[in-house]
Order: sequence, then structure tokens, then C-alpha cells
Amino acid sequence: MKAIQMAEFGGPEVLKLVDIVEPEPEKNEVRVKIYYAGVNPAEAYIRAGGYAFFTPEFPYVPGFDGAGVVDAVGEGVTRLQVGDRVFISSILANRKTGTYAEKVVCDVEAVHKLPDSISFKQGAALGVPVTAAYRSLFHRGRLKPGETVLIHGASGGVGTLAVQLAKYAGARVIGTVGTEEGYELVRKAGADEIFYHNEEHYIEKIQSLNDAGVDLVLEMLANVNLEKDLQLVNKYGRVVVVGNRGSLDFNPRLTMAKEADVMGMAVWNAPIDQYNESLIAVEAALSNGGLHPFVGKVLPLEEAAEAQKVILEGNAKGKLVLEIVKE
Amino acid sequence: MKAIQMAEFGGPEVLKLVDIVEPEPEKNEVRVKIYYAGVNPAEAYIRAGGYAFFTPEFPYVPGFDGAGVVDAVGEGVTRLQVGDRVFISSILANRKTGTYAEKVVCDVEAVHKLPDSISFKQGAALGVPVTAAYRSLFHRGRLKPGETVLIHGASGGVGTLAVQLAKYAGARVIGTVGTEEGYELVRKAGADEIFYHNEEHYIEKIQSLNDAGVDLVLEMLANVNLEKDLQLVNKYGRVVVVGNRGSLDFNPRLTMAKEADVMGMAVWNAPIDQYNESLIAVEAALSNGGLHPFVGKVLPLEEAAEAQKVILEGNAKGKLVLEIVKE
Repeated sequence: MKAIQMAEFGGPEVLKLVDIVEPEPEKNEVRVKIYYAGVNPAEAYIRAGGYAFFTPEFPYVPGFDGAGVVDAVGEGVTRLQVGDRVFISSILANRKTGTYAEKVVCDVEAVHKLPDSISFKQGAALGVPVTAAYRSLFHRGRLKPGETVLIHGASGGVGTLAVQLAKYAGARVIGTVGTEEGYELVRKAGADEIFYHNEEHYIEKIQSLNDAGVDLVLEMLANVNLEKDLQLVNKYGRVVVVGNRGSLDFNPRLTMAKEADVMGMAVWNAPIDQYNESLIAVEAALSNGGLHPFVGKVLPLEEAAEAQKVILEGNAKGKLVLEIVKE
Repeated sequence: MKAIQMAEFGGPEVLKLVDIVEPEPEKNEVRVKIYYAGVNPAEAYIRAGGYAFFTPEFPYVPGFDGAGVVDAVGEGVTRLQVGDRVFISSILANRKTGTYAEKVVCDVEAVHKLPDSISFKQGAALGVPVTAAYRSLFHRGRLKPGETVLIHGASGGVGTLAVQLAKYAGARVIGTVGTEEGYELVRKAGADEIFYHNEEHYIEKIQSLNDAGVDLVLEMLANVNLEKDLQLVNKYGRVVVVGNRGSLDFNPRLTMAKEADVMGMAVWNAPIDQYNESLIAVEAALSNGGLHPFVGKVLPLEEAAEAQKVILEGNAKGKLVLEIVKE
């Protein structure tokens, strides 16, 4: 089968299109014929070498996320059968090969059903972003129905999924965006209120909303917004740091008066039971019409190197996926 | 009875020694004849005006903490009786007058027994510091037996009590101190390891201890130490911000890789059930020999103004108490 493979750490050029032997599923594993694979910054960090959370063994086929059809199941697998439409989210699973390939074999726990209403392209946009969104909202942020969550940077891959998962759980959602395109995405995702974070006084506008304030913030750019977040949250408010690009001048006193929590999130740290729980919740939200992933750019599998360049430059304009089989 | 009273906000000079009518305990209240009253920075902030957590009505008798003997009980009070040796920790209770006085009347929930082994002077050193220590360790910091806690600034009023409460609960305690006097106090409090935080490489020394690292930090000076704390903690580590005096250059990424929590603490924010629970726990620790408060400076009641000056200057050299009746 065709796959993208790397034999060493390095620039995008180490990603080569090769022919490799199709892997066989063993006990508790399934094999999926992949239509689309999701591309995440983590894969580019791993390729460059020195990534803290994951060290590949060479030769290595990258990719954790994807969507397609089950084409073989190992011993003991009863939850899925050949022909099932599925999505794959495998960063914490045992895998043979990755998803930048025509087929992947991995633990059945990393593979979940995709309803007919969700395309394979959309299914490939779940994976890391949706488990990051879920973990931030619920396992780290302890979001409850009826609470208000501010998603500070809501138009990205994690943000749009977080808006939908929070609404699905019965929370009130405020989103911030930087562009009109972003505004439209977050509106489609179902946010109750949307503000431009490059507009003056947008913090005061959020504060002046006629309600009980913000219980939780999902923060995509903590080095810019952390102090603002702590001004916005209620007593016992929580700020989950999902993204960050540097340092800021920060006064820890802001956490004291409200007994606020600032909590880092890295989905790689999820205990496996919480990770698996999040995937089951995502499958339920998909099947009940509560999640509609947005896809930005699509590139063919052989352009995986270009895809990783694009994603590091932040120019993907929505979720970037690799096409292996056209839908 | 004699009491310190203020009729307006202002400098220490607004604190006047006056004669006022002895208050009577009503339903669910007890009256305590006070031997010693604890002095806290909060009382000086309240006296100056504009304190976020508490606004007095004038004329106002300051003081939340103290120790003495129950001399009258209101209707329905069965847990305490006249003659009991007790300590008072009343920041969240209903009070008639404060503890800078010969007697105080307050809710019975704020008054707990003091064993014979603990002097009234020591009992007056509990109150705000011990509830702050308990809340930081357990309600905010979620400390468990067998975990390691770093008390970063362990020789102060909160620190020495936190060392003892953590040891009493079965945790391993590392303390940091700035002086030889502080070292001696923290050694007496029972810390397993003590380091000077003004020594070079003390962080590396803590890191090189042959064990599983730090699960929780109680941080008394977050603007200096917050980044160090996040370097020291384990995966899922917690830092509770107990004290802070300004801003720092801070990289929020430090919270992400370990999914660490930075949590502000202000004992005024305690839900009343948690506050009352902490006082019951403190009474148990006292009666089982697990808590021996340290007293630094003692001043007579009429020098309350001087006491508040001393405490704001940070020159108390241990807990400062006012003497009303000599033991």
C-alpha cells in the first residue's frame, strides 16, 4: 500500500511517498481503509525531532487522525465490523503505521463510528482537535450545563469543535474571532455571542453582557490574554491554557481574589480512560447531530510535506486534511 | 468591657481603646472571655478602607482570631459549655464585636476546643493562618497522604502551620526558608527537608532529592517563584498561590506540558461548610498533638495600633498576638 514514511528527523523533505506491506490486525485491533487523514502541528513537531510527548521509531509513518471504512478486524473485536464508516483518533493508541497511508491498523478503542451525515473529510478533522476540545471543556475545565464558557480564539480547529461540544452539553458559549471568515464559522458552530478580539473594548463588551459572567475560559493564546481572562471569570472561575506562544507580564494576585484556577492542557497527558471516554462522547454527539466538523484545505497524500509546511505557517484557513481516496 | 474600636477608616491612629457594653450571646452563639487575640494583615487592610473581602459597620471592633474561655452560651448550644478552653476563628461567622476586646460573642461554629497542652497564646495564633493553611493544602491543593508538598516560604504564620498539617495528614514536606531562625522553626514544625531560598541552586537541590518529585506547592511569594514552582512539580502538579507581591515575566506554556494547575487562594472565599470543616479538622489535629502553633511577638491590647504597624512592616518575627489577660 502507499504511505508517507520518514527514516530520520528533519525538514518536511524527510517525508517520502513509499510502498509498504499492508499491516494485519491482531487481537483487539482493527484495520481501516483511510479516505482522509487529519494533519496536526504535533506531526510536524515530531518530524522535526525532540518533541516532548512522542518519539517515533524509524521507519515511521506519521499521522494519528483519519476517517474511512473498516476493512478487517482482529480477534475479540465486536463493537465494529467490516464496512463500518469510522473516524480514527489514535495518539494514545497502539498503532501499526500511521494515518498518512492507505490503511492503518490500531487498537479498536481509537476507532469510532461516523454517521452517514458526516463526510470522511469531516471525520478526519476530529482526532486531536476534538479530543483536545473535549478534554479542555470537561476533564480539565469541569464545564457544567448552564455555565458560560468563553472560547478565546474560537474559529480554529479546536475552537469550532469546542463551541459545538459546549452547546451540545447545555452551556452558554461566547466566542472571540479575528476575521469575518472566523466570525461566520463560529456563528455556524452555534456560539451565543461572538466578539472580535482585535476590536478595542471587546473585554468591556463581554463584561457588560447582561448575565452571570464567565465560569470557564478556553484560552488559545495565553501569552496575550491570560490577565484579561482572569478579569472576566467569576469567583472560582477556571482558565484552561490550550495554546500559547510566549511570555507575558503576569500578576498572580489575579488568581487569588476569585480563587481562580489556571490549568494547562496537553491532550497527550490524558489518562487513557479519560481519552477513551472522550471518544465515546464524541461518537454520541456526532450521531445525535451535535458535531459538524469544518474542513479548510485539502491536499493529496503525496503533498504531506507541503501540508506540514502550511500548518506550521498557520495558513490552513480551517482544518487541513490529506486526501487518500476521493469521496 | 475594654475593647479596641474604630469609628472611621484611616491610619493606625483610628484604633482607640474604649469601654463598651458586654455583648450577650443569643441563639447558637457563645461568649468567650479572651486572653489573647491574633493579629493579621487583613485587619490592617480593613482598617485602612477599601478591602475587597470585608467592609465593617462603625463603630467597629476589629479582630477575628483569639483564644480564651467560654463564659456564656446562647440557646441551643450543646457542643461547648461555660469554662471550656477554646480558640476563635471567626472571619466568616456572625459576630458581635471582634476579638480585640475582653470578650467576643460569635456563632458557635467559629469556636473550638483547645487542649490543655496548647496555651491561649498559641490558640490565638490559629484563626486565619490555620484556616488558610488547611484550605491551601486540602480544599484547593487536594493534598493526599504520601504526596510531596513544597512549602515555598515555610517559616511564616501560614507556613509553619501548613508544615504541621501536611505531616499530620501523612504527606512528605519540603520547606524553604530565608534565615537560620526560620530554619529552626520549620525544623521544629517537622519538615522532612529544608532549603534556603536565597542560596544559589536550591531549586536544583530540590530536584535532585532522590524521590518522585513535588506534587503540590504552597507558594507564599508567587511573583518571585511561580516559574520555579512549575519546573519543580510533577505531571498534574498543583501550585496554590497563597501570597504574592507583584508581577513577573511568566510563560503559561509551563502549565501545559505537565497539565499543571495554578490556583489562587483567599480564605475569605471558602464556602462556609468547607471553612467549618477545616476548623473541626484543626481541633482534631490539636487534640491529637499534631499542631503546635508558634508565637513571635506579644503586645498588650492597648498597643493594637502599633501591632498593625508591625505586621504591615513584616517585622513580627513569627505570629503577633495581643495580650488581654496574662496566662
